[in-house]
Amino acid sequence: MIVVQKYGGTSVADTERIARVAERVAQAKRAGHDVVVVVSAMGKTTDELIRQAEEISSNPPARELDMLLTAGERISMSLLAIAIHEQQLTARSFTGSQAGIITDATHGKARIIDITPGRITEALAEGHVVIVAGFQGVSRVSKDVTTLGRGGSDTTAVALAAALGARVCEIYTDVDGVYTADPRIVPQARKLDRLSHEEMLELAASGAKVLQVRSVEYARNHGVDIHVRSSFSYRDGTWITKETSDMEQAIISGVAHDTGEGKLVIRRVPDKPGVAARIFTALADENINIDMIVQNVSEDGTTDISFTLPITDGRKALEILESLRSDVGMEAVTLDEQVGKVSLVGAGMKTHPGVAARMFQALSDAGVNIEMISTSTIRVSVVVRQEDVETAVRAVHEAFGLSEADTVAEVPA
Amino acid sequence: MIVVQKYGGTSVADTERIARVAERVAQAKRAGHDVVVVVSAMGKTTDELIRQAEEISSNPPARELDMLLTAGERISMSLLAIAIHEQQLTARSFTGSQAGIITDATHGKARIIDITPGRITEALAEGHVVIVAGFQGVSRVSKDVTTLGRGGSDTTAVALAAALGARVCEIYTDVDGVYTADPRIVPQARKLDRLSHEEMLELAASGAKVLQVRSVEYARNHGVDIHVRSSFSYRDGTWITKETSDMEQAIISGVAHDTGEGKLVIRRVPDKPGVAARIFTALADENINIDMIVQNVSEDGTTDISFTLPITDGRKALEILESLRSDVGMEAVTLDEQVGKVSLVGAGMKTHPGVAARMFQALSDAGVNIEMISTSTIRVSVVVRQEDVETAVRAVHEAFGLSEADTVAEVPA
Repeated sequence: MIVVQKYGGTSVADTERIARVAERVAQAKRAGHDVVVVVSAMGKTTDELIRQAEEISSNPPARELDMLLTAGERISMSLLAIAIHEQQLTARSFTGSQAGIITDATHGKARIIDITPGRITEALAEGHVVIVAGFQGVSRVSKDVTTLGRGGSDTTAVALAAALGARVCEIYTDVDGVYTADPRIVPQARKLDRLSHEEMLELAASGAKVLQVRSVEYARNHGVDIHVRSSFSYRDGTWITKETSDMEQAIISGVAHDTGEGKLVIRRVPDKPGVAARIFTALADENINIDMIVQNVSEDGTTDISFTLPITDGRKALEILESLRSDVGMEAVTLDEQVGKVSLVGAGMKTHPGVAARMFQALSDAGVNIEMISTSTIRVSVVVRQEDVETAVRAVHEAFGLSEADTVAEVPA
Repeated sequence: MIVVQKYGGTSVADTERIARVAERVAQAKRAGHDVVVVVSAMGKTTDELIRQAEEISSNPPARELDMLLTAGERISMSLLAIAIHEQQLTARSFTGSQAGIITDATHGKARIIDITPGRITEALAEGHVVIVAGFQGVSRVSKDVTTLGRGGSDTTAVALAAALGARVCEIYTDVDGVYTADPRIVPQARKLDRLSHEEMLELAASGAKVLQVRSVEYARNHGVDIHVRSSFSYRDGTWITKETSDMEQAIISGVAHDTGEGKLVIRRVPDKPGVAARIFTALADENINIDMIVQNVSEDGTTDISFTLPITDGRKALEILESLRSDVGMEAVTLDEQVGKVSLVGAGMKTHPGVAARMFQALSDAGVNIEMISTSTIRVSVVVRQEDVETAVRAVHEAFGLSEADTVAEVPA
């Protein structure tokens, strides 16, 4: 049975840690598995390479930046292969290109469009441990090296697990699983044993850093089981699987927060068809990812539209909107970078009304003002002042009794 | 017209130097040339990567070591491409594999067996500066990444110049050409304007570090003109070309020395057919490169055989010979690591007898004892005590009047 293991940058930060990872890999191999290991670049290597590129140019060409950054995994994967040989096993490392990770040509955030893992299956059949460089691929048409964007190694691992029909995709990281909240903010936060893909997707999209959103999407779409666990311990971590009826289901899985977003408010936009489309098309054309969008009921033929987006895109979005202003006829556009988002996620929410109300009450009791609200079937998100985020997370975590294991929180029916 | 430029590790040691190299490349491009640039890894990167591998294993598998080391040029070439974009030009970097450098599968010292530069010519036709990772290729059969051995970037450059029909292969380095002797030992040493491939080959094989021996061989076999010059100045360096009748020919080009070799002496070997073959086959089977071999006339049916070899291979060779000893019937084998080699090279030697005699006289006058002698048509090499090497180089350089430009040394006819 094939097992895919992915080790992040912290797990392979130096040669000593690489040697420890090799021991883990060897254990899995000796336990009878065919092991495919996906690695990120060592520690801060990627940041260091970006720094060098920025010393030379404020706007490095994307093709060359991808060529540069992919050196990082090349180093970690070959060092890991060498370390596995020290375990009296043989290993073969492969770049994204050699491993058949075929992508589109969007340098810097390429999408995987196909996997042709012929060399991997061949090497596995010959008894080798296979190591694959995460985060990278090769574009189908230009044959140029591409990268999948920050955290892309998770996606590499999940995509390989899907293509190879692996039993599990183990994501090794420096925390021992997914928690009900960030333990740095809520020390009583509890490790979750199991989550559905949908819940993990909402948590990741709401700011939980443990997995890249795209990797969870990919896992959901291809039915890949993910096991998030620590590379520093042998305890079970958190399993992320297809939602099944026999899954012991908590109403709420956890609280996620995100302080990396800003809020853009457009006031007094004409309330007529096509206006919102026009605004968001202009933003999409410039590759700006929008998160929450809220539009309230209109008054006097005009309405207010607010949305959140990564802070890094804030200024650019503001400029685009300013350029549309007289044309579209909006009164004012303001950017607020001092906000934060707090989200409550849980698959049980669908069948338990009152979750949102209880969350809002907890925030109110904690003196936190809510600026925006957005919900999905299994998530409630609110935007609050950035300085209120920690208070909000603790209040919500407490209100739903997420600290005590096995407690299903009471929700007023 | 295509120009190939190769920049060594010192020339691209940091981002500032890379930016300066980009200026040079841009000049050549603006002068109307199609420019192909071959780069080594930055400064001490390769050494650093080897150090990391050695932290993990005393015997890293060759395939993985090659994968690891090739990260070095990947970094320097993409940073250079970024720097060239800053010069308002476009550049495309290619790995050895992408550039079509096809090799055999001997990891660590692969030989180039073919060049399929389709992507290079395409990129040149589109007006880009092309940057190619030196030192690396891809094996024809296994499709694994290979390296060409230390200094292999020179060979990459020459091989590309040959395959592309380039006008010249410029080798940029931290010295401004080939000298009559190492200027650190002989301050009056003179820069040579021109050398034949054969002379350069003998100099390189005799210890001159400026070019890798294989690159000169390749240049000779494919008629590639090499221009060795400094990346820190715009002065002409040394041209290495086909020997032509109109070439103004000095009798002696220079003195080279090498303190990286040891001497193995085998005493009282039976003087009968097949013995030498047996000994040197055993050494060749273990990939030990032998340099000079000297066998003297025999006495009592036995003879002495001495040879030099890289010091790093000394112990291993000693063991091999010890294991053959009783079988072959040699009396004693001794390894002497405290030797050095001094060589006098010059194409004019062929037609000027007396060169060797004059060299030996100069050494004798300087009080240097000669332990071994070996000659080719255009070279005389002697092995001396290691502590005598500098004295010997100075004495020979002086005896042939190599300091004064345009002086053709008098040789007793």
